[in-house]
Amino acid sequence: MEITPYKVEGEINYNKVVKEFGASFIDERLKKKFKGLKLVERDYFFAHRDLDKLVGKRFAIVSGRGPSAHMHLAHLMLFKFVKEMQDKFGCYVFIPFSDDEKFLFDNKLSLEETKKLAHDNALDIIALGFDPKKTEFVFDFENMNQDLYNLSIKCSKAMTYGTVKAALGLTNEKNIGVSFYPAMQAAHILYPTYKYKLPSLVLIGIDQDVFVKLSRDVAYKLKLTKPGCMLSKFMPSLKGSGKMSASDEFSAIYTSDSDEVIKKKIKSAFSGGQETIEEHRKKGGNPDIDVAFMYLKYFVQENDKKLDEIYKKYKSGKMLTGELKDYTIKRILEFMKEFRKNRKKSEKLLPKFMK
Amino acid sequence: MEITPYKVEGEINYNKVVKEFGASFIDERLKKKFKGLKLVERDYFFAHRDLDKLVGKRFAIVSGRGPSAHMHLAHLMLFKFVKEMQDKFGCYVFIPFSDDEKFLFDNKLSLEETKKLAHDNALDIIALGFDPKKTEFVFDFENMNQDLYNLSIKCSKAMTYGTVKAALGLTNEKNIGVSFYPAMQAAHILYPTYKYKLPSLVLIGIDQDVFVKLSRDVAYKLKLTKPGCMLSKFMPSLKGSGKMSASDEFSAIYTSDSDEVIKKKIKSAFSGGQETIEEHRKKGGNPDIDVAFMYLKYFVQENDKKLDEIYKKYKSGKMLTGELKDYTIKRILEFMKEFRKNRKKSEKLLPKFMK
Repeated sequence: MEITPYKVEGEINYNKVVKEFGASFIDERLKKKFKGLKLVERDYFFAHRDLDKLVGKRFAIVSGRGPSAHMHLAHLMLFKFVKEMQDKFGCYVFIPFSDDEKFLFDNKLSLEETKKLAHDNALDIIALGFDPKKTEFVFDFENMNQDLYNLSIKCSKAMTYGTVKAALGLTNEKNIGVSFYPAMQAAHILYPTYKYKLPSLVLIGIDQDVFVKLSRDVAYKLKLTKPGCMLSKFMPSLKGSGKMSASDEFSAIYTSDSDEVIKKKIKSAFSGGQETIEEHRKKGGNPDIDVAFMYLKYFVQENDKKLDEIYKKYKSGKMLTGELKDYTIKRILEFMKEFRKNRKKSEKLLPKFMK
Repeated sequence: MEITPYKVEGEINYNKVVKEFGASFIDERLKKKFKGLKLVERDYFFAHRDLDKLVGKRFAIVSGRGPSAHMHLAHLMLFKFVKEMQDKFGCYVFIPFSDDEKFLFDNKLSLEETKKLAHDNALDIIALGFDPKKTEFVFDFENMNQDLYNLSIKCSKAMTYGTVKAALGLTNEKNIGVSFYPAMQAAHILYPTYKYKLPSLVLIGIDQDVFVKLSRDVAYKLKLTKPGCMLSKFMPSLKGSGKMSASDEFSAIYTSDSDEVIKKKIKSAFSGGQETIEEHRKKGGNPDIDVAFMYLKYFVQENDKKLDEIYKKYKSGKMLTGELKDYTIKRILEFMKEFRKNRKKSEKLLPKFMK
């Protein structure tokens, strides 16, 4: 098992990771405060830092986007959750697009390309229905603002090269933008706290937790409230293991995929079913490792009863893999139909999100 | 002899420095193109890179200011020269105030303090009469703009940590803003080229040449015209040796000093005169090491004949140290009177310089 911000490999033992990272589990008591939020109830967001201190008070959500390519459905799933959090808690949402980071880390990407990707990703996010009055986008290459820049310099003064090197494995061959970047990332995280006096709650995959840790140390030095976070598991790739990667187009479903492509991808996705129909009827499938089922569980099947029914039917062998996949495809395509319709209005709304 | 961007010590052999740094001397042929510009004619600006390629074409001047304290007269002298260059060549002048740099390098300075100092320094510079239509100020902490930020990230992608470490002696204990800073400095230097397609001519003390060298390498990688530079000697401190330092208040005359303080400082400045009047009359003084004479030569005595006359009279012993100093004080106070009058209008003009 290897989890770093740049690499996720092997069989992941989430319990072990949480302990190693020094985070806490979202326990049953805490979970009650997120009633109706399926990604918490179904343990996708399963760990946290200081969440208990933040919930019940005013806080802002920070959830960034590194625009290296078109978004895939797991990204959409995360931002859909952010939107649900906004609805439930009425909180301010800050979404920094780290186009600069992607540009710095990828030798093949030009500045103009990352700007375009950020724009494209933003339209996807807007289509999820965020409230423009309570949501702020910053594209580092497009509407960097003075507060954010100043904060990044303040953060950089509070982080030594040695600390960052140890945390992220820097080398002399890396460019100096890469070594500076954790300061901008900390600034993204602390921006609502610095600018609006709102403590930050970062919604993030557990592989990115190190940035939260670094920014908590920085917050302490700058005398700002330490950011909390909710940490999620990974949505597996369509191949069933490893993290989905926006740079491997066969590992994920893209928001730009056509219905035909989505169908094909789900059809060929890793399944928890048996080799033959006979065997499946006899032994039953394994929904817990079935990718199509995960899409239902974490993305497009809100209804608990219905989900439970499918789980049991698939596990007992009553429901075949093909049937499970057809149902999942149907649900995803329904979602995508609505999504694409809304996305057409995104372009017009975009300026409202850029303060 | 030690010359780095952070330290100047010992007896300076300028010829050796130019050769070691790989720059060129401003020769007699090139000097002719600067007729009337005393700081070139009198060899204060004595070395360069690519100056011959730039003069005669359209170019922009870049001359930055790191606002660590009130400015002193040697700073004013430099910006007075920049203004004369603007008048002679009609060129665009870009003055970046690296308040962020000063903040990052000085643990005692707060962000707000460096902002105030930058503002104060800017008023001094405006008082020299720059044309607001052809002069642009950027205060990194106040009006950082998107082009400059984007360019700094581009520059940072073109500089490895190893290169910067070797050039500037970075260590693990330094903050990550310090290791990033050369990218912002390169961006300052290349800004007119990136934004306005004007090649840059950097006017700078020879101790800062390493930044020009770094930014020339970056320019090459970004396919921008390499910046040229004119390199100056150092104005010695009032004590007669070492570089003036804005952080040692007895080594320099500040723009904020009163007439009384200026008088006192010149009176006690290092002199090339002899111990007694009798000895001085007999052996004569040494204007070449006399600090008061240098103020005349590089700052407040434009008239060549008059300067030459003083030089000879002092050298021959006809002019006493007290007389030389009194004359110098008179000229400086004349300058300061005018300067203070103009400075009152600076505040109002400032917004015109911030595009």
